[in-house]
Amino acid sequence: MNQKVVVVGAVALGPKVACRLKRLDPEAEVTLIDKDRYISYGGCGIPYYVGGDVTELEGLYSTSAHVPRDAKYFENVKGVRVKIRTEAISIDRKGKAIRIRDLETGMEEDLPYDKLVLATGARPVIPPIPGTKLPGVFVVSSLHDAKAIKDRISRGLVENAVVIGGGAIGLEMAEALTDLWGIETTLVEMMDQLVPTAFGRDMALVMKNQMEGKGVRVLLRERVMEILGNETDGIRAIVTDQREIPCDLVVLAVGVKPYTDLAGDAGLAVGRSGGILVDQRMRTSDPDIFAGGDCVEILHLVSGEYIPMPLGSLANRQGRVIGTNLAGGHERFAGTVGTFCVKIFDLTVARAGLTEKQALETGFDAVHATVVQADRAHFYPTMKLMYVKLIADRRTRRVLGIEAAGWQGDAVKARVDAVAVMLPLKADVNDISNLEVAYAPPFASAMDIVNNAANSLDNIISGRHETIDVIDFLERFKSGRKRVLDVRSPVQAGPFVEKYPDRWLNINQEELSARLDEVPGDEPLFLVCGSGPRSYESQLLLRQKGINAQTLNIQGGIGMILMSDPEFAPEGYK
Amino acid sequence: MNQKVVVVGAVALGPKVACRLKRLDPEAEVTLIDKDRYISYGGCGIPYYVGGDVTELEGLYSTSAHVPRDAKYFENVKGVRVKIRTEAISIDRKGKAIRIRDLETGMEEDLPYDKLVLATGARPVIPPIPGTKLPGVFVVSSLHDAKAIKDRISRGLVENAVVIGGGAIGLEMAEALTDLWGIETTLVEMMDQLVPTAFGRDMALVMKNQMEGKGVRVLLRERVMEILGNETDGIRAIVTDQREIPCDLVVLAVGVKPYTDLAGDAGLAVGRSGGILVDQRMRTSDPDIFAGGDCVEILHLVSGEYIPMPLGSLANRQGRVIGTNLAGGHERFAGTVGTFCVKIFDLTVARAGLTEKQALETGFDAVHATVVQADRAHFYPTMKLMYVKLIADRRTRRVLGIEAAGWQGDAVKARVDAVAVMLPLKADVNDISNLEVAYAPPFASAMDIVNNAANSLDNIISGRHETIDVIDFLERFKSGRKRVLDVRSPVQAGPFVEKYPDRWLNINQEELSARLDEVPGDEPLFLVCGSGPRSYESQLLLRQKGINAQTLNIQGGIGMILMSDPEFAPEGYK
Repeated sequence: MNQKVVVVGAVALGPKVACRLKRLDPEAEVTLIDKDRYISYGGCGIPYYVGGDVTELEGLYSTSAHVPRDAKYFENVKGVRVKIRTEAISIDRKGKAIRIRDLETGMEEDLPYDKLVLATGARPVIPPIPGTKLPGVFVVSSLHDAKAIKDRISRGLVENAVVIGGGAIGLEMAEALTDLWGIETTLVEMMDQLVPTAFGRDMALVMKNQMEGKGVRVLLRERVMEILGNETDGIRAIVTDQREIPCDLVVLAVGVKPYTDLAGDAGLAVGRSGGILVDQRMRTSDPDIFAGGDCVEILHLVSGEYIPMPLGSLANRQGRVIGTNLAGGHERFAGTVGTFCVKIFDLTVARAGLTEKQALETGFDAVHATVVQADRAHFYPTMKLMYVKLIADRRTRRVLGIEAAGWQGDAVKARVDAVAVMLPLKADVNDISNLEVAYAPPFASAMDIVNNAANSLDNIISGRHETIDVIDFLERFKSGRKRVLDVRSPVQAGPFVEKYPDRWLNINQEELSARLDEVPGDEPLFLVCGSGPRSYESQLLLRQKGINAQTLNIQGGIGMILMSDPEFAPEGYK
Repeated sequence: MNQKVVVVGAVALGPKVACRLKRLDPEAEVTLIDKDRYISYGGCGIPYYVGGDVTELEGLYSTSAHVPRDAKYFENVKGVRVKIRTEAISIDRKGKAIRIRDLETGMEEDLPYDKLVLATGARPVIPPIPGTKLPGVFVVSSLHDAKAIKDRISRGLVENAVVIGGGAIGLEMAEALTDLWGIETTLVEMMDQLVPTAFGRDMALVMKNQMEGKGVRVLLRERVMEILGNETDGIRAIVTDQREIPCDLVVLAVGVKPYTDLAGDAGLAVGRSGGILVDQRMRTSDPDIFAGGDCVEILHLVSGEYIPMPLGSLANRQGRVIGTNLAGGHERFAGTVGTFCVKIFDLTVARAGLTEKQALETGFDAVHATVVQADRAHFYPTMKLMYVKLIADRRTRRVLGIEAAGWQGDAVKARVDAVAVMLPLKADVNDISNLEVAYAPPFASAMDIVNNAANSLDNIISGRHETIDVIDFLERFKSGRKRVLDVRSPVQAGPFVEKYPDRWLNINQEELSARLDEVPGDEPLFLVCGSGPRSYESQLLLRQKGINAQTLNIQGGIGMILMSDPEFAPEGYK
């Protein structure tokens, strides 16, 4: 008897399961059902469709050979039966059947299964405020939303937009609206930073500056209370706890929640963070029912907690595991470290593991190093600066997370990926110091930035290098307490000395050992150079000479200061 | 008593040792000696200086803050005593002193040491043929060579150049000569492929096509017998075993050998492959003498053999380990997997681990998958094809190596780095299937090419996917034995059917299940599609239907065929 497999949900994980299973077990009778008529599309591509990088909606649901991945495609090419516009209503686990409803005709039927796969995805969170259903308010969760947003814009109906939510999708949507369409866009985020679940405050500040530099207004610590408008004319403004912002379009991007109604109603175990519980084989509490993708919780391989991680990349990998297991295989999906990247206009940020805050909350004795360095040999003409933050546990030296930003996106991804894959293996700081990443001058320094980030972290953990974070520095410097000793050349430091008289000292590192008598004796000083290494060496020299034991070196130096606060720079300084 | 440390050799490893040691132990008396007057330069940057990407020689020996790393710099800023133009003649291990000679004055002296570090590097191999000392023949091993080559070219003396040796440096030099200067350049390699120590035949063919497409003449399986010319007029040609090639410049790039005279004379153990033997702490057989960089052998973490691996990146990482250990630390350098990358005009290639040939020679039951896929979401506008070859052991499924090529170099590096760092950990194919690399449409597909390469390898090892390598295919197809079944659309396949009448069949995969009767029954066929997946599915279908069990799917499909042999394409086909 051929096994009957029903897959509920036909985006990302669902199709992957179905196709993999059919390749391994061509006799399996596989049915893929979905409420929508669009299936197997690249939902992550929606911002690029809205922003014009992808010109046709079809681009998001076609194969690389330009064949639309529609029901006919799955039936002819993959041998998978597809029911679109079909809702799964309930699961009869004892009878091993799933009740489905044709959304066009309203007809219901029971579909028997030997194995069932839940790929029900996640639903966008709708904030509990008035006005979210008004015309002009959109979520970003299906191609219908994508089409509706783009149609509205291209009909010239949008001059001002508000994106609610400063997560990755909010950033991508804000870029899409601003970049192609020149819409005046405001992004409102309730928390005190962008993407708080994935980046530290410093990297978030870098992102905020990039957004603002490109014309997006970013409002943090601001809560949206209401969306104003009416059914006929649509929306006209949003009201926050601080102001009213006129707008013609609102994008809600405040996160997603696993869609688990079907699973919950059937009595399948749902975890604390709201996702369906699955084992490493991706089986739910019912061994005949598998689940994966945005509707499940998976193990975070650094924190040890079970969490939803709604990423298309994970869904695809899990889909293959489920497909193999349905065909009698024994594959496992161990968990996640939450690796991902986002393009924000010209800037790319990427990350994996835990943020320093998350690491502290998890109970680690978290410490970080932030390093600014050329993303290729510093003498290579296309060189740009790159920013890497590496987080580790002080006691065990285990590396817990990495965050990076830079102007050549693939290069940023390269650094994060190389460290990300080491996180589940409990790599320590020394492992990353010697991480054997590829070198040639057009692509890296001989000592790559990831190696140097680990080297810096080693120095910090060993107590050799006493540092201050750029954000703490900016706060403390602005509150007027300490002075800065800048060890760059007078040409580089001069404009800062001029802008901050009495607050900014300059002794070139090359002359420091000869001019030790000019260093203020026992005054706590911030040390700075272009990116950190020279001021670190200066700190060592001062300590050795017993001149000043109270210095703190600013991590990432002027490079990180100016990425975090462009206003800090003297006028005309580049 | 402060420890006295003498470091012999002041490029890459030597300076790194000296500076790291001084940061940890500021009281140490460190002397850095070198025969040359240029020190601490980026030797890997020489091709970019010759090729004009780096305009001034100073760029190669200055810090990122544009300070020349000369003797004065090391003395003032790093507290390291430097003796340039100084040769180390012999080591008195009992007396713990090293005899040195000032090359300007001829004066000799004994320098006492507590610890000695040998960073003597490697010397270029000079082929044992007549003429290698004639004016116009250069190696690429110092800034003097770099300057001499560039001076000669910029004085208009070079119209035709020959690069002898098809390794990475040979490729970089050939690009430099051709790209900026438009010199007619011929590259001669004795072996049957480029970079045979690091890439398989297929990737090497891709590189060769790139070189030839950019105007470099590449001659394989050709041995240079003599360089013709005289002292007065310089060279006029090279003579190979097959022809005479007129030229005004010859670059010898046939490899390097560890420089171990000093170590050998002092009775330090030298290994089978010709490098100084060191333990994981980078100590030689004399515990008071450390060595690292191009003059030592290190453990290959996949093959288990000790080999020289002359890469600036490894030298820097080893230098830090030595510096730490000299200061009383306990760091280890475990070994290498030989990760590196090379830019060849617009193409970038990168690799790590063993080639398939090396793996077989080492005793592994090596098998590979070659995958061609978009380097970002296939719908993203800046997408280019990327080529990844993954090599594993059939029995244990351990991944042994990776090679990649593509048009966006950082993206190529990203894929190789993420797999490279897993090689020492004995990652298996499934680990790479689920490797958690970062995803967003501007940077990757949801199922990244590294994941898919592992998926493909899994299918091959499991016996589900029967493949043929592109090179084997090209040989066998040209010898006229088998036909091809192309499962792409008629629009794509048509020009091939026309160019290869009677040899090239076409049935669109979408129609294959309905047109099974058109498939030749028991004739062995090659299957092909754009990059491999559709023809793999077609193979499964044919097998399931019992139609034709003798098909071989061409790895990487048309994408890999055209990268390996552009002439194979029908005229005007792109």
